This record gives sequence, structure tokens and C-alpha cells, in this order.
Amino acid sequence: MKPYAFGVDIGGTTVKIGFFSSNGKFVEHWEIPTRKEDNGSMILPDIASAIAKKMDQYNITIDDIEGVGVGVPGPVLGDGVVSMCVNLGWGKVDVREELTSLLGGVPVEVGNDANVAALGEQWNGGGKGHDNVVMVTLGTGVGGGIILGGKIVAGSNGAAGEIGHMKVRDKETAVCGCGKKGCLEQYASATGVVRLAKLGLTKASAKESPLKNLEEITAKDVFDYAKSGDEYSLSVVDEVGKMLGEAIAHITCVVDPDVVVIGGGVSKAGQILLDAVEKYYAPAAFHACRDVDFKLAVLGNDAGMYGAVRMVLGK
Amino acid sequence: MKPYAFGVDIGGTTVKIGFFSSNGKFVEHWEIPTRKEDNGSMILPDIASAIAKKMDQYNITIDDIEGVGVGVPGPVLGDGVVSMCVNLGWGKVDVREELTSLLGGVPVEVGNDANVAALGEQWNGGGKGHDNVVMVTLGTGVGGGIILGGKIVAGSNGAAGEIGHMKVRDKETAVCGCGKKGCLEQYASATGVVRLAKLGLTKASAKESPLKNLEEITAKDVFDYAKSGDEYSLSVVDEVGKMLGEAIAHITCVVDPDVVVIGGGVSKAGQILLDAVEKYYAPAAFHACRDVDFKLAVLGNDAGMYGAVRMVLGK
Repeated sequence: MKPYAFGVDIGGTTVKIGFFSSNGKFVEHWEIPTRKEDNGSMILPDIASAIAKKMDQYNITIDDIEGVGVGVPGPVLGDGVVSMCVNLGWGKVDVREELTSLLGGVPVEVGNDANVAALGEQWNGGGKGHDNVVMVTLGTGVGGGIILGGKIVAGSNGAAGEIGHMKVRDKETAVCGCGKKGCLEQYASATGVVRLAKLGLTKASAKESPLKNLEEITAKDVFDYAKSGDEYSLSVVDEVGKMLGEAIAHITCVVDPDVVVIGGGVSKAGQILLDAVEKYYAPAAFHACRDVDFKLAVLGNDAGMYGAVRMVLGK
Repeated sequence: MKPYAFGVDIGGTTVKIGFFSSNGKFVEHWEIPTRKEDNGSMILPDIASAIAKKMDQYNITIDDIEGVGVGVPGPVLGDGVVSMCVNLGWGKVDVREELTSLLGGVPVEVGNDANVAALGEQWNGGGKGHDNVVMVTLGTGVGGGIILGGKIVAGSNGAAGEIGHMKVRDKETAVCGCGKKGCLEQYASATGVVRLAKLGLTKASAKESPLKNLEEITAKDVFDYAKSGDEYSLSVVDEVGKMLGEAIAHITCVVDPDVVVIGGGVSKAGQILLDAVEKYYAPAAFHACRDVDFKLAVLGNDAGMYGAVRMVLGK
């Protein structure tokens, strides 16, 4: 194997670039802005140019590079083609082909950002040591990634692991960003937790809750007050746990993983979240999968770079 | 590749044995009884002896055999070990090791019967031409199998594809065979369809239903009367469709397959079942997966033999 590789995580605001030695350790990592103007046509040239400069700086050539892995915030088909990526202003872009060409022939692998982050956590994070990992990412939305045999499951439409849009409630009047009603994301994302908390604030059970005194409620507030014993906040956390625990039970019936890793901003709540999830997971899960390990993600925002480089180092 | 292979489907009553040429066509297939006495200790020797006789009959030796694939009605781990198989009277049995040894070193592959049947349908049945297939089998129970990249997803505990035990209803008082309440199997298996039909028979809407005149109701009766326009039977089929359609929407969020194949005895109802499933699938599915193909299984009871031999021919 060649001595170096790059892992690139393209976000809506910044592109994170990791320069790795082929043993999987960072040599260095940095960020560049994501220039979305002109339908994002400068994003790949900017990345290529940043990588080329870094190679110059270290006095290495493309012969020293095993490859470049890239995570993209949209659906990616198996051949490295992005069919559409609203977040970047992209229509159909053949990321593998274009970036390989910009970089003088370096092999490029491309994956959806949530799937790539899942691969990072499987390889070097909460799922380390396990080949079969389900990752659930609780951020502004709810994303996910399925890793089987150490490889990303991309799906026929690049939509495998889109577990935020699993329908988990029948009677829902609010509409999810995807257009459906009752998606997991409407309850277990940061905004979903806040939404649930606000929905019940007029209930008698919320009368004494310190959440009522806040001008703006955040998901962190809900978990913090739950930790300090506020009954109402605890009931919201319990509801989130039920939605998540039962959805994860659906997932384990399908792929029966070794471990479920929970990440994203909401997962910073820590053990109280895991406890709420496991409370509802166990009775809903198929008996053979009941003892699956739940782990918190550990790589944070670096998971994307790790997963991206793993696509080229783990082939 | 060697010119022949065997595909063996072990059931609770009979063992189906397929003698295949390596192009995947039957040379011949037959059945032997499953002898469950003495903790099923004779089952593998019986299979080995049947295979040996067939080789004698065709005047071939183990050097002409690519391998033997075996489907077992219980969870199978990746290394071909069955941890427990109540249907056969087995505790832990290393099927791969034992059968290889009984057959003088022929390579043996082992899988769970539902997963193996799914592989058969993916290879040569309703999912032919597609690498990523979800199969849902509606028989006495509800089983399933997940095929990704043309390979069985077995899972950490051999429980991948156990979608009959996905919890799909919160308010259920009846207990499933697995000990939980609200499993898909309680609504969409042959017995589940009958259960649903009986549950509502006292309703006003069932007043005119011809189902009321039957001494024993079968799932076939429910679908047949639905086809002939009985409103009550149609409402039962609709409910089955909702349970199945929404459960399949959960599954496609996880693995995003090319096609969903529906098999088992209940699937003989045909288009009326597919229509009911698709009616509820589409609104529950993630938009990228909404157009997944639904197909009926085509191999019937032969799916297990096809899938079993595919494990050795498709390596």
C-alpha cells in the first residue's frame, strides 16, 4: 500500500480534509470553505487544489497516494455518482470520475456522508472491533449508516441507512421535511426533541418544569433538566427513547448487527439517552438480537474524514 | 468449476435434496424423511448417505462435486454452526464441519432456510437479475431474507431477515410465538390473516360476509372472498396490506433493495395482496425507495434447494 491517503468530508459550509498516513492516523487535517455558488461547480476543483498544495508542502506526488475518499451530503450510487445534492447546489455529478481526473488519476471512492461517518465509527470509533455496525446519527435531522462486513451498504438508490424517515407514528399531523408524517426524525432529532418538549408544555405535567421559564428551548436543555430530575423533561426523554428504541428494534430485525452506535449532537446527552433507548429497545427486539451492544459515537466531527479515508484504505 | 453440486433444504418433515449441474439446472431432485428422533442425530448422516448413493448412481466421485449447500430451519452463524434448532431436535451442531467430514471433504456451506430461500429467489426467481433483494415469506409464520450484493446477510446472531418479529402494533393483547406482542407475523402469516378475520367477525361490517358461514376459515378463503367483492374480506386484506406495507417501508429505509419479493403460501393470493401492500407501502416509504419493485416469488418449495446450491456455486 502507498504511504498516504486523504479523507474528505464535504459539508454545506466547510469541507473537512484529512491527510492520513496509510496506517489510518492523521498527519494533519484542516478545513476549506464550501463554495456553493455556480451550482457548486468549484467544490471539487477547490478540494483537488487543496490536496495538491498539501502534497507539494510535504514534497510527495500522486505515486505516494493510495487514494482519496469523499463523503457527500446526498445520495451516492455504487459507481460514485451523486444523482442530486441540494445542499451543495449539485445536480448529477460524477464525483469519482471528476475528482480522479482533477487529481491526475488518483483512485477516488465516494459515499453518502452519513454512511461514511458510520464507516468511520465502525473502523475507529464506537464500533471498533466489529464488522457489522448500525449507526444512528441524531443531529439537526436523523441519519444513519449500515456497515456489514466492514463495508458500507449503499442501497439501490443510495438511500440505505435513511432511518430518519422510518415512519414510527401513525397519528401525526406535523409534516416532516421529506413530506411524510410520523418520521423518526420528527421525534429524535435535535429539533424533534424540542418539538416534543414544546408540544406538551401546556400539559398539567409540565406545570412545574423549568423548561417553561426558557425563552428558547434546546435539546440539551431537555436532557439537562431530565438529568436534574425534572419529571416533565424525563417524560420527553422517555418518549424520545420509545421512538428510537422501537425504530432500532426494526433495524436489528433486518440486519442483526454486532453493535448499534448512537452519535450526533443529541447523543452528547450520554447515558440518560442510551438508558431511555434500551428501555424500549429490549421489549420490542427479536429475542436473538436483544443483547446487541449500544455504544456512543466517539469520533464526533472527525468521523466523516475517518470513514472517507477508510473507503480507500480498507478496500 | 466442478461439474455438479447439491442443494439441500432441511425441513421439519422432509429433507429436499437437489442434484444440480454447475450451470444451476436440476439434474434431479427428491426427498427423504427428516428423522428427528435421538435429537436429530441421524439427519446429517441420512443426507450424506443419500448424496453418496446418488453419486454412485451417476458414477461420479467427490472430485466432481463443487460443494453441498444446506438450508437449516434455525439460526446459522457465519461459520456454518447452528446454535440451536428446535424443529430438528438439535442443540449446537457444526453442520459445515460434520457434513464435510461425512462426505469425505466436500466443501459445505450452511444458511438459515428463510435466508437460503431468499437467495434462491434472488438468483433464479422473483428477484432474478437483481443483486439486492429483500424477500418476505408469508407462510404459517412470517420469515424473510436479505440478499445484498448477491450474498445472504446472516447477521451477528444469525437473525438478520427475521422480519416476522418486527413490532408493528402497539396495542396488541395477543402474544406471538416469540413471546412479544404486536409482531408482523401476528397479522400477515396465514394464521395471522385468519386471526384478523375472526377478530372482526362480530362487527356490523362483517354481517353479510360469507366468511361467517364457514366452519373453518383459511387465509385463502379471506383472499378469495375479497376477490369476489366481499367488503369485510376486503377490509381484512386491507389491514394485512397496511401491516405488511409499513413493515416493508421500514426495511427499505434500512437496506434500500432493488426489489422486494413476496413468497410463501399467502402470496398465492397474488395481485390483490401486492396491491394492498403497495397501497400502504408508498406513503410510508422514504421517497428515494418509493418505486421499489414488488414481485411475487416464483420458485415455490424449490427456492430452498436453489438457494442452497447457490451458496456453493456463487462463491
